[in-house]
Amino acid sequence: MKDERLFEKAAIIGVGLIGGSLARVLKNRGLAGRVVGSGRSEANMKKALELGIIDEALPLEKAVKNADIVVLCGPVLSILPTLEKAAAYIKDGSLVTDVGSTKSDIAYGAEKISAGRFSFIGSHPIAGTEKSGAENSFETLFDRHRCIITPLDNAPVDAYNRLVTLWQKAGMEVLKMRPDRHDKIFSAVSHLPHMVVYALVNAVCEISEGDDIVNFAAGGFKDFTRIASSPAEMWADIALSNAKPIADQLSAVKNHISEIESAIKQNDKERLLGIFKKSNAFRKKLT
Amino acid sequence: MKDERLFEKAAIIGVGLIGGSLARVLKNRGLAGRVVGSGRSEANMKKALELGIIDEALPLEKAVKNADIVVLCGPVLSILPTLEKAAAYIKDGSLVTDVGSTKSDIAYGAEKISAGRFSFIGSHPIAGTEKSGAENSFETLFDRHRCIITPLDNAPVDAYNRLVTLWQKAGMEVLKMRPDRHDKIFSAVSHLPHMVVYALVNAVCEISEGDDIVNFAAGGFKDFTRIASSPAEMWADIALSNAKPIADQLSAVKNHISEIESAIKQNDKERLLGIFKKSNAFRKKLT
Repeated sequence: MKDERLFEKAAIIGVGLIGGSLARVLKNRGLAGRVVGSGRSEANMKKALELGIIDEALPLEKAVKNADIVVLCGPVLSILPTLEKAAAYIKDGSLVTDVGSTKSDIAYGAEKISAGRFSFIGSHPIAGTEKSGAENSFETLFDRHRCIITPLDNAPVDAYNRLVTLWQKAGMEVLKMRPDRHDKIFSAVSHLPHMVVYALVNAVCEISEGDDIVNFAAGGFKDFTRIASSPAEMWADIALSNAKPIADQLSAVKNHISEIESAIKQNDKERLLGIFKKSNAFRKKLT
Repeated sequence: MKDERLFEKAAIIGVGLIGGSLARVLKNRGLAGRVVGSGRSEANMKKALELGIIDEALPLEKAVKNADIVVLCGPVLSILPTLEKAAAYIKDGSLVTDVGSTKSDIAYGAEKISAGRFSFIGSHPIAGTEKSGAENSFETLFDRHRCIITPLDNAPVDAYNRLVTLWQKAGMEVLKMRPDRHDKIFSAVSHLPHMVVYALVNAVCEISEGDDIVNFAAGGFKDFTRIASSPAEMWADIALSNAKPIADQLSAVKNHISEIESAIKQNDKERLLGIFKKSNAFRKKLT
């Protein structure tokens, strides 16, 4: 079903799982007149063209030229350098967004780069699969998921409304949040657990040296440490692009570990019970 | 199907999920002539009798008297005090075991209490469900699971063989291990993750104060923190009965967290990649 056209020309920079899926939404639902793509992998761009996900593959500068919307879909740490490179070619008044998992550094960096000439509003569509690349993209990826958008106070109303409409048309529930609050929350519920499990798995790896601990790491441990299989490259980027909240929260986790450690060493069952029951109670709120 | 009788009288001390299930195995498969039970909860003992799980409910002293095997199935921290109380009534040469999740403290403590008069060999049947109590016990609970038994060097061969046969008849794969090695391994793959997740959840609880972080704790976080719902009482016991390995390993986890924290603060992507890739590689061995 064709929807009302939102943009004449849309430029997707990085046509992977997210970028490719958004390109499909823009094209197949008639939200953009023309969807062009740009990306570093020639093979992936060829695939995106073959599959009809984009109308044209172009170098970055040509892709963004005259585009009414530019969506930066590369890795989190590439967003600002890419925007820097593209900025001179982006037309006045254009809407620029990204799909990165961290928002503060990007929001404030992009504001500087745009210098008020175009409107940058960050997006974090919370959708994905374990697969990557244009060939794994699909139009319904965003359906019934949430998208956090993180406009700064001076974001133009028109750009804001178009961005909300775009994600809604993609099937998402759109929530507005300050970038720093977004980063604190997603550090706590996503980035922090990843860091802690990486640390735990490495500790167990060290402990297991010279022993076959691995043979006893049955169901529970395997399930629990699944996120330690998350791609190192992507998570290094996320960690560095949300450095302050993650570092602060890691420090808080260490304090809570120290509390447990000290209760154990002091053989203080009441204190341990208090700690574990607090955890039980908070966990209960999630279900 | 009836098997060869292993024991004339079996005493199950604590007829809950594990004790009840083992009583069913002993009775239904004809491994014991008579199965008596003892426990603190009158309601539970009544239930066990009603369900025919045990032949008789008795006070501790009478239960162990003349028993050929005594299985201590109470909480980990109750095992030694219970054995202390029962010891004088246990007959010479009897086989005594437990089903606790930690083994060193119990093994060395029981050796002292027995003073060579009866044979204590610890067991850790790795089986269970989320439910507890006699009414939730069932005969096939142990089927195809592992049981670690932890004899000290001086364990009599006959007692050892009977214990192996019992767990095998219950359907388990039996592995022998030194108690301290058992405790180190199970600290790493089970106790440590529990402690770390309790700490993580409490840190997130603290971070979330005044904010609705809980609303964003979707799928991943919920799955990951499932073990923070584990019963506080049981895990306080486990923590205190395996204090040294757990405390050492918690300290190791803090060091690994500090490494990540410092790499983030120094904006050192190469170092972060090294840490995360090491974790990826170890995790891969588990699958």
